[in-house]
Amino acid sequence: MTGTALTDFAKQLDKTAEDTEALLSQLLSDAVLPDEIARPKRVVDAMRYSSLGGGKRLRPFLVVESAAVFSVPREAALLAGAALECIHCYSLIHDDLPAMDNSDLRRGRPTLHKAYDDATAILAGDALLTIAFDIITRDEIHREPAVRLALTRALARASGVGGMVGGQMLDLAGEGRFGDRGPVDVARVQQMKTGALLRFGCIAGAILGQASEAEYKALDDFGRALGEAFQIADDLLDVESDAATLGKPAGADAELGKTTFVTQLGIEGAKQRVRDLLARGDAALSIFGAKGEVLRAAARFVAERKN
Amino acid sequence: MTGTALTDFAKQLDKTAEDTEALLSQLLSDAVLPDEIARPKRVVDAMRYSSLGGGKRLRPFLVVESAAVFSVPREAALLAGAALECIHCYSLIHDDLPAMDNSDLRRGRPTLHKAYDDATAILAGDALLTIAFDIITRDEIHREPAVRLALTRALARASGVGGMVGGQMLDLAGEGRFGDRGPVDVARVQQMKTGALLRFGCIAGAILGQASEAEYKALDDFGRALGEAFQIADDLLDVESDAATLGKPAGADAELGKTTFVTQLGIEGAKQRVRDLLARGDAALSIFGAKGEVLRAAARFVAERKN
Repeated sequence: MTGTALTDFAKQLDKTAEDTEALLSQLLSDAVLPDEIARPKRVVDAMRYSSLGGGKRLRPFLVVESAAVFSVPREAALLAGAALECIHCYSLIHDDLPAMDNSDLRRGRPTLHKAYDDATAILAGDALLTIAFDIITRDEIHREPAVRLALTRALARASGVGGMVGGQMLDLAGEGRFGDRGPVDVARVQQMKTGALLRFGCIAGAILGQASEAEYKALDDFGRALGEAFQIADDLLDVESDAATLGKPAGADAELGKTTFVTQLGIEGAKQRVRDLLARGDAALSIFGAKGEVLRAAARFVAERKN
Repeated sequence: MTGTALTDFAKQLDKTAEDTEALLSQLLSDAVLPDEIARPKRVVDAMRYSSLGGGKRLRPFLVVESAAVFSVPREAALLAGAALECIHCYSLIHDDLPAMDNSDLRRGRPTLHKAYDDATAILAGDALLTIAFDIITRDEIHREPAVRLALTRALARASGVGGMVGGQMLDLAGEGRFGDRGPVDVARVQQMKTGALLRFGCIAGAILGQASEAEYKALDDFGRALGEAFQIADDLLDVESDAATLGKPAGADAELGKTTFVTQLGIEGAKQRVRDLLARGDAALSIFGAKGEVLRAAARFVAERKN
């Protein structure tokens, strides 16, 4: 990207992050709770602690921009993006727990169980996961109930045992947590653990836009390429960055002796793979012509990010 | 109930429990996972450990019988019931964790985190919660997408921060977990923690049956009465039963110094309250005439159960 294009992209990303922040703040307030039952303040506060106050909001951005390809109203896409972000935030809370990755720091702040306690963190995660399925069914997302249902089911598939949760289990197993660690299929772990939600972000636009089969497949292919590029960049950052830049400890993978894209391909091999993936993503988007421009920039941003 | 009626009721309950068991076993198999990604066996095994092999399946029974009032096909109601049971089972897994209630025994067997480990238990709970929203959106549940959406949203509301999860948070706070325990609103905790899912079981039939407003309200009122009766019976069992009958330790509430319906009303007062609730439930069901018979029996079963 040229300097100007990069600045424009950064502005768009920031704008969607701001809109998502405002929307989440509204969704995670009294408004979402049934009138007859007052909210249990502690768990709502914990949900807000972990889901508000920053983050790049990359997943909502992908929903908004994949939806924009089909001229889906931005407000509808932001709601779907907020549901996806709730799933992402819950997964970070549960992954950080002492029983899982035992992380003290997240985005430069204490993790939720450190700021509150383990029980509250488990419940706040459960509540964020659940509210995602309240949000994703909302009337404002699409006039056709069948479209909202398709989106709801796709979100459940991406998040569950065949997607993110299953990937986290494979990742823990790959650390030798349950005995012999055996061979680790890094690509499969990535596709499930981090790839499934990023891919959902891209196909969400196709579902909302009632895309043709070819258009759906294009966004699906793009989402898979972007997801893998995201993870390789993450693995590269773990060896090449530092805690101050990352907002969490660097070198964590090596400390665990984890198999990553970098241990498998080497640093140069990993960087070449990212370039190949960007080319694959561009090719997938060619069907959309100029309308795919922001998504192309998003893939580059993901691949070249510093934290 | 007369002896014969009780036997008939027990047979119906057993039949639905068997059907639910078979359905869950099928739903929690390879069939639910996307073809391109093999399942992570450990988490699927853990999901099956906690959701198969018994239980009264009271919640699916309520879905099936409230749906039967409107002649909804049994297969559709069983699917919705299975989704609800996944939510119930996930909640037991997470509640049993060391960070929460720290329970070693459930239905006379080691709890999931004892049989496996804490990380697997957290993930299996997350996966069961998530798969519930995959199941509840299935085409076979109702031909109208709008009906499935309404059911999906009602399930999310019942399960989340304004329902079950919020209730568990209030319950932990009531144990003095987060400092001063302050006054405990036992009825409010019950309505959220255990009541919300039981109530959903009853209104699910109204949603599936596209009930009139009056019919919906009748099942809602009935569900609330049944839910409170269920919890009072639970509190009574904790003081009047033993571990062998309960399949979990008795006297746990007293040990925690918990405020319950029994500490608030006394044993006789609690029993009188159950009788009042049964009368209220009967009155609510009167709109359905003879079609409400099985639900009336279900309320009695809940109130008089021994474990």
